Amino acid sequence: MAQKPSIPKGTRDFSPEEVARRQYIFGIIRKNFELYGYMPIETPSFENSETLMGKYGEEGDRLIFKILNSGDYLSKANEEYLTAKDSLRLTASISEKALRYDLTVPFARYVVQHQNDIVFPFKRYQIQPVWRADRPQNGRFREFYQCDADVVGSKSLWQEVELVQLYDAVFSELGLEGVTIKINNRKILSGIAEVIGAKDKLIDFTVALDKLDKIGEDGVKKEMLEKGISASAIEKVQPLFHFSGTVNEKLAKLSQMLSASEEGRKGIEELGFICQNITQLGLAKCTLDLDVTLARGLNYYTGAILEVAAPESVKMGSIGGGGRYDDLTGIFGLKDVSGVGISFGLDRIYLVLEQLDLFPEAVASSTTAIFFNFGESEAQYAMKAIQQLRTAGIKTELFPENVKMDKQFKYADRRNIPFAVMAGTSEIEQGKYQLKNLKSGQQELLDLENLKKALS
Amino acid sequence: MAQKPSIPKGTRDFSPEEVARRQYIFGIIRKNFELYGYMPIETPSFENSETLMGKYGEEGDRLIFKILNSGDYLSKANEEYLTAKDSLRLTASISEKALRYDLTVPFARYVVQHQNDIVFPFKRYQIQPVWRADRPQNGRFREFYQCDADVVGSKSLWQEVELVQLYDAVFSELGLEGVTIKINNRKILSGIAEVIGAKDKLIDFTVALDKLDKIGEDGVKKEMLEKGISASAIEKVQPLFHFSGTVNEKLAKLSQMLSASEEGRKGIEELGFICQNITQLGLAKCTLDLDVTLARGLNYYTGAILEVAAPESVKMGSIGGGGRYDDLTGIFGLKDVSGVGISFGLDRIYLVLEQLDLFPEAVASSTTAIFFNFGESEAQYAMKAIQQLRTAGIKTELFPENVKMDKQFKYADRRNIPFAVMAGTSEIEQGKYQLKNLKSGQQELLDLENLKKALS
Repeated sequence: MAQKPSIPKGTRDFSPEEVARRQYIFGIIRKNFELYGYMPIETPSFENSETLMGKYGEEGDRLIFKILNSGDYLSKANEEYLTAKDSLRLTASISEKALRYDLTVPFARYVVQHQNDIVFPFKRYQIQPVWRADRPQNGRFREFYQCDADVVGSKSLWQEVELVQLYDAVFSELGLEGVTIKINNRKILSGIAEVIGAKDKLIDFTVALDKLDKIGEDGVKKEMLEKGISASAIEKVQPLFHFSGTVNEKLAKLSQMLSASEEGRKGIEELGFICQNITQLGLAKCTLDLDVTLARGLNYYTGAILEVAAPESVKMGSIGGGGRYDDLTGIFGLKDVSGVGISFGLDRIYLVLEQLDLFPEAVASSTTAIFFNFGESEAQYAMKAIQQLRTAGIKTELFPENVKMDKQFKYADRRNIPFAVMAGTSEIEQGKYQLKNLKSGQQELLDLENLKKALS
Repeated sequence: MAQKPSIPKGTRDFSPEEVARRQYIFGIIRKNFELYGYMPIETPSFENSETLMGKYGEEGDRLIFKILNSGDYLSKANEEYLTAKDSLRLTASISEKALRYDLTVPFARYVVQHQNDIVFPFKRYQIQPVWRADRPQNGRFREFYQCDADVVGSKSLWQEVELVQLYDAVFSELGLEGVTIKINNRKILSGIAEVIGAKDKLIDFTVALDKLDKIGEDGVKKEMLEKGISASAIEKVQPLFHFSGTVNEKLAKLSQMLSASEEGRKGIEELGFICQNITQLGLAKCTLDLDVTLARGLNYYTGAILEVAAPESVKMGSIGGGGRYDDLTGIFGLKDVSGVGISFGLDRIYLVLEQLDLFPEAVASSTTAIFFNFGESEAQYAMKAIQQLRTAGIKTELFPENVKMDKQFKYADRRNIPFAVMAGTSEIEQGKYQLKNLKSGQQELLDLENLKKALS
């Protein structure tokens, strides 16, 4: 009968301390989203399969969790695929719903479905879990939260400026030093491919270039050659392999390199606007850097591309990313809605804060004071005080059983509760309470008003 | 290509205003849970099927959403059931995971799995969605949130006292008048069944009694007779059909009626302790009432049974419920862990607050001030102020495009933004800002410091 309980691989239980720390991060993200005018929406955990399927490529389709139809699902199963035991093809006939894979496609669906109620430009944020049947590994889970802010219906580059500021606001409030916000632009990558005569090989070119910090200059060049990009073309982009300097210096170098490409010039102009305004306005703790190798799902982005790198000391890689896309809602029939958005990687941010010991101590604090239990009438006396302390916003508990003191002390200790309150016959007679600081051992006899003050 | 987008039946999209209102309710529930010493945990959205199946009865099993195994799931499908097209039996061989159906079973699983890390008594709360393949209908959804607080590992009746107080604290803070917290005790129902000689018919008896306010005295008696409860037995419980008076009067009547039943007397003692202490401590806005017909999943509860009735004016029925159970974790092999818990019905509470117009206006407020856009250099001037206002915690936006004023006004109006800030050439020269109250039409010329003050 009794089972040894466990949870599915790639999923997690969160303890009170972990929930509190996650809520701390969510809280700062949410607060800043709202300060920047983004408004929350929520969408269902599962969508109709046709909403999700075909939106993430073949690999994505495979990683979407499908929900089995309820009831006698086999009665509607496709006979041919059932007989052939063709799992892949059978699925559509026995599963109509699937768990969301990201927040972007449901957002696009939401915008199209509610387009008549939405005021554009529509700035929305969404903090909800997503599910992927990925192979679980270090830091990769089958259920995890995404925190996205997007604005659709505006082509203004001020949106990009604000999103850079928003990243800076969140990471600064989290106390993170040394975060780099990397920026690039799809049009610059297109321009480069154009001037080297490899316009038809844009994807191959950028995929290779994106690997620069992993496989080095020689590796990238080798891959480009293999993909059919000529040696002379590669020669033309030689400066990219040692692309250093300030953002302005980099923009100047790109201007030279891309003077012949209209698209390239447009990309430089866009990047210039964003970088110049960010410089003017200043960032609190983050650094903005132009990273010409940054590509991130190039098929998707049409303008700015953003990625946030954790402080170098923690070896965590990207803790956020985003960019501009010009036709998010087209898949659902609403054309020409330009959008730009960013995402925060909650799990990695958590690990970074943990590694750097940046969670404030108060975050994980539970109850402030526990009243020890000396019996029924003492508990009644305690409960009257507890009621008033709670009304005053002080987290308070009564130890529920009248057991030996050492057991009650041990409980307070294991729960990390900083104060104990004791009131036996003599305190009750005086209308007072013994307040004990469980760390220092200090003890004070106080009336209710002063007890309230001491615990506030 | 383009699909008309929709969402699965029984699920919902939540607009920014709805999310804000839901967060308002969650916030008050969460705050009070923590004031009472409950700590948050979270469990995965899906569990291993064997964790959930068989825990909610046959009907429950049917309503659990099953997740299709990834990859070539048919390769492991049971041949016999596949050939027989036996959907029900096949499921276990093609689905290993299922969406959680409630928060109680995952909590029990959590307690057993983490028993060595948990300090008992363990007071946990959990606010997460659950999924049920129920027929969607008015106010019943396939995805909905549960908000549960439970304490396990303590038999102290102070827990029940506190849970009544907790209900009162939450509903009072939500501004709800006229809420009734109904209380009963399984032992009293057992005692009644015992003294009327229908101990073996406890379930039939209570199921019938529970219908009193729906089918009336005659209906209940008829059902009891049909279930084989004798007329003379029914005669003995005649007082229950018109059971009125104060809690103390009701307890006195029950004491008489149940004097011959040890279990009944125990139930009265327990109820007496809870009611007496609640009377002593007082409730802010709710009323505690003893409802001897209250049964709520009797198989589950072993002591106190609680249910919260919405104010009579709104015809909503139960907006919360709970009770004590003595062997929650037994199904996972951990015996003798007594627990007691309560749950808040978020969706119904939302409807009640909406109907009574009790959501504070501020809850749904979005951005406080929007800066109109008069062109690039004006926008740069605006952005410097916006940055400072946001740092001061004021929700501020820049209208992203330099378009005609009426379009910007219309946007502010539709977004319900109360203030607009305008700064053109002349304001910039003076280093000032025009602040316009969009409701009154009043306008003021202010420097940044005073703008900040005016918007705080």
